[in-house]
Amino acid sequence: MAGKSDKREERQEGITVKKSENFSEWYTQVVAKAELADYGPVQGTSAFMPNSYAIWERIQEVFNKMIFETGHRNAYFPMLIPESFLTKEKEHLEGFSPEVFWVTHSGDNKLGERLVIRPTSETMIYSFYSKWVRSWRDLPLLLNQWCNILRAEIKSTKPFIRGSEFLWQEGHTVHATKEEADKEVMMILEFYRKLSEDYLAVPLLVGKKSESEKFAGALYTTTIEAMMPDGKAVQAGTSHNLGQNFSKPFDIKFLDKDSKLQYAWTTSWGIATRLIGALIMIHGDDRGAIIPPRIAPIKAVIVPIYKTGEEKEVLAKAREIKSALATAGISVILDDRDDRTPGWKFNDHEMKGIPVRIEIGPRDVKEGKAVMVRRDTLEKKSVSMQAISASVADLLEDIQKNLFAKAKAALDASITITDDYGQFRQTIENKGGFVLSGWCGGQACEAKIKEETGATIRVIPFESKDVRQKCVYCGKKAEQNAYFARAY
Amino acid sequence: MAGKSDKREERQEGITVKKSENFSEWYTQVVAKAELADYGPVQGTSAFMPNSYAIWERIQEVFNKMIFETGHRNAYFPMLIPESFLTKEKEHLEGFSPEVFWVTHSGDNKLGERLVIRPTSETMIYSFYSKWVRSWRDLPLLLNQWCNILRAEIKSTKPFIRGSEFLWQEGHTVHATKEEADKEVMMILEFYRKLSEDYLAVPLLVGKKSESEKFAGALYTTTIEAMMPDGKAVQAGTSHNLGQNFSKPFDIKFLDKDSKLQYAWTTSWGIATRLIGALIMIHGDDRGAIIPPRIAPIKAVIVPIYKTGEEKEVLAKAREIKSALATAGISVILDDRDDRTPGWKFNDHEMKGIPVRIEIGPRDVKEGKAVMVRRDTLEKKSVSMQAISASVADLLEDIQKNLFAKAKAALDASITITDDYGQFRQTIENKGGFVLSGWCGGQACEAKIKEETGATIRVIPFESKDVRQKCVYCGKKAEQNAYFARAY
Repeated sequence: MAGKSDKREERQEGITVKKSENFSEWYTQVVAKAELADYGPVQGTSAFMPNSYAIWERIQEVFNKMIFETGHRNAYFPMLIPESFLTKEKEHLEGFSPEVFWVTHSGDNKLGERLVIRPTSETMIYSFYSKWVRSWRDLPLLLNQWCNILRAEIKSTKPFIRGSEFLWQEGHTVHATKEEADKEVMMILEFYRKLSEDYLAVPLLVGKKSESEKFAGALYTTTIEAMMPDGKAVQAGTSHNLGQNFSKPFDIKFLDKDSKLQYAWTTSWGIATRLIGALIMIHGDDRGAIIPPRIAPIKAVIVPIYKTGEEKEVLAKAREIKSALATAGISVILDDRDDRTPGWKFNDHEMKGIPVRIEIGPRDVKEGKAVMVRRDTLEKKSVSMQAISASVADLLEDIQKNLFAKAKAALDASITITDDYGQFRQTIENKGGFVLSGWCGGQACEAKIKEETGATIRVIPFESKDVRQKCVYCGKKAEQNAYFARAY
Repeated sequence: MAGKSDKREERQEGITVKKSENFSEWYTQVVAKAELADYGPVQGTSAFMPNSYAIWERIQEVFNKMIFETGHRNAYFPMLIPESFLTKEKEHLEGFSPEVFWVTHSGDNKLGERLVIRPTSETMIYSFYSKWVRSWRDLPLLLNQWCNILRAEIKSTKPFIRGSEFLWQEGHTVHATKEEADKEVMMILEFYRKLSEDYLAVPLLVGKKSESEKFAGALYTTTIEAMMPDGKAVQAGTSHNLGQNFSKPFDIKFLDKDSKLQYAWTTSWGIATRLIGALIMIHGDDRGAIIPPRIAPIKAVIVPIYKTGEEKEVLAKAREIKSALATAGISVILDDRDDRTPGWKFNDHEMKGIPVRIEIGPRDVKEGKAVMVRRDTLEKKSVSMQAISASVADLLEDIQKNLFAKAKAALDASITITDDYGQFRQTIENKGGFVLSGWCGGQACEAKIKEETGATIRVIPFESKDVRQKCVYCGKKAEQNAYFARAY
């Protein structure tokens, strides 16, 4: 990635490939030129630059509100996990051990026991919960942490989408019964859907994972799954019922109301900075990123346009607009840099994806007007100064709806329904997207499909209605439908 | 630490030692019984439980506001630093290498180059800045990150105060001139003072570090320093001018307005979760923690008092109070658990340090009144229901002022002024606190004092007025005054 002043020149040119023609290169350029992320020195690591980190802070704000209102609290747990913890739950160990980073020394001293950097925190957090949970009075225990996670990724890393270090939240809850844990899992899944669809404008398929795709050690895993424009799916969040699979090895027991000692039921759930990658991929266009208004840290930018001698009245009006929008709760910046042309600024803010641009020049001032430009369609509209806050607020809502509607139409169009394995393979190979087919439920068929096409089961719908006649692979009776896709 | 239901029994007993008699044990008990932290499996690590993490979130909120208003932005940088980065700045390497954790493997693979887990991020962040800074237009570059930090601590670890993993913010800025970097350092130091004194009610000495106590690699280090009730100092935050010491090895250069290539000037600054330890130590009493109102996540708790048959009217009134306070922007909880007695609840909330308790019983309801109990003095006051929000708001302000005034008086009383080394030693040994003495400026005297008394120079005042005649150790002419103390 080039330095800033070099990039400024480049940015004037904009992105040099079309999203529709070279998606991968387009994404790389948007991430760099919108100053979202930059590659770190260690394989698969990135810096999250202010433009993306501010989106993450907005995601935190929205999600914290949802979980606080339902009785959850945030906490922070140690990052270094003794090797012996990881080995307590066998499936969990097998799932994560190939990709953990090992700490072996502190200073010049070899450690008595090797430590792993958390690839997820079930084992660490449960070592605390086994001390904290004693009685039914202590339940439910509803905690969440925001932290960094490390998983050594060697191949096909991509900023936000797959990296060796990322940021996430991980919720870890303890319940008295399976039913309460089930409820928690589904409530959180609904929060994830709401966050993703209503704020990020990223439409989803929602359902369960298959046995082979579930979280290592879970009873079952639920998921929200999004489709990228290149036909590959992104797992955008998961919520797991861990049953008693962790409470037993980690000894999380409680005295129930009848004074009987019971193993507790636990859940865990997480979303990560990968959401930022998904929203960039889905909404961006050939001019750069488009940030959906409800999650955008900056919702509007004012660009004053003037010749020498006109700046005073134009800037005064621009400041008035800024203050009116701020009063209306719309986060806004005024780009009054005097060493850049308006055209340069237009390109700059379009690249970064600020939802609304407001242009104001001497004639607008005279006429008591300003021009609003929406980032999604680039349409311009002249509006009166008096109604500017309301006009911008309406436009933001309209952009939000339009971005979601467009993305939803693309998701729907990406779905192919077939029972014919030939068509299945062709679709995965040529068109991509989700393929909805019947599945016998057998892991052998699932494995063969993955081997032969690269597609995995992304989502099994919760409701088994309209189950198709036969398994797309073996032709035997289908037990359920499944959405298959290649995935990031 | 015992489990929750055990602790509930213990808590009814309260803390079993007096703060004035066994400070160390008192602190350990407050941390455990107020559910602030719990020990992790790896030496020196702790979980930050919801009661302390919520304070950290408040600190983030207050500090973010200060830095955002002055043009700083948040970002996130990778945690794993290649060994070669750390060796680029010699003093920095020597300062940190004894306490870093080394990552040597990922999965079963030995890494090509060993990695350290960040003990601080100058070297990592500067590897990015060397790409991002090209021209004077890119300056100042003002970024901050909130993250976890790891430094292997073997001896005298204490939750919040000293641990192998803690949370902090680290600001890293780049400037065109030394003067601008100086200004930044002092502006941030003032933010730290404001946060600490005005929000945490933790009074400070403010000034510079000596050469031997400054940050490894800095031009100079400024500090805020607090005094604990056991006579030991806590370094509560530092702000460093790093000069060009890092910009040269890390190649952070910019073209100035005359198109000449210059090395930039950098600063870094940090505060950590240790602030939480300091405020607990300073304000807590024999009943538990006391959280200063302006930083308290929960400012008031309502405890309804009733016999069977009275609950309806009492709870209705309690809810009315809750809603009135919430409307006035006072974060409040209503403790309507029906399986705990009012007395048990009083103890519980006093242990956790909620600033104001509001009691309401049937007679209060009849008289249109409620009782406010302030946590710092335990004084009770009956107030009219109509004026309850204003009364609580006033009381919170009063508690805030009182906590600071008490702590300030204790800080002032902790200071001993002497030029006599005999008295110096005796004071450090018996009374503790800060000793203000003249100092010749020689590192030999400083080292001898440390060796013989365990006291280090904590703060050198910015203004060298009233410099004392002679160095407390060698008796030669004093160059400046210095505050000495033993420290955590």
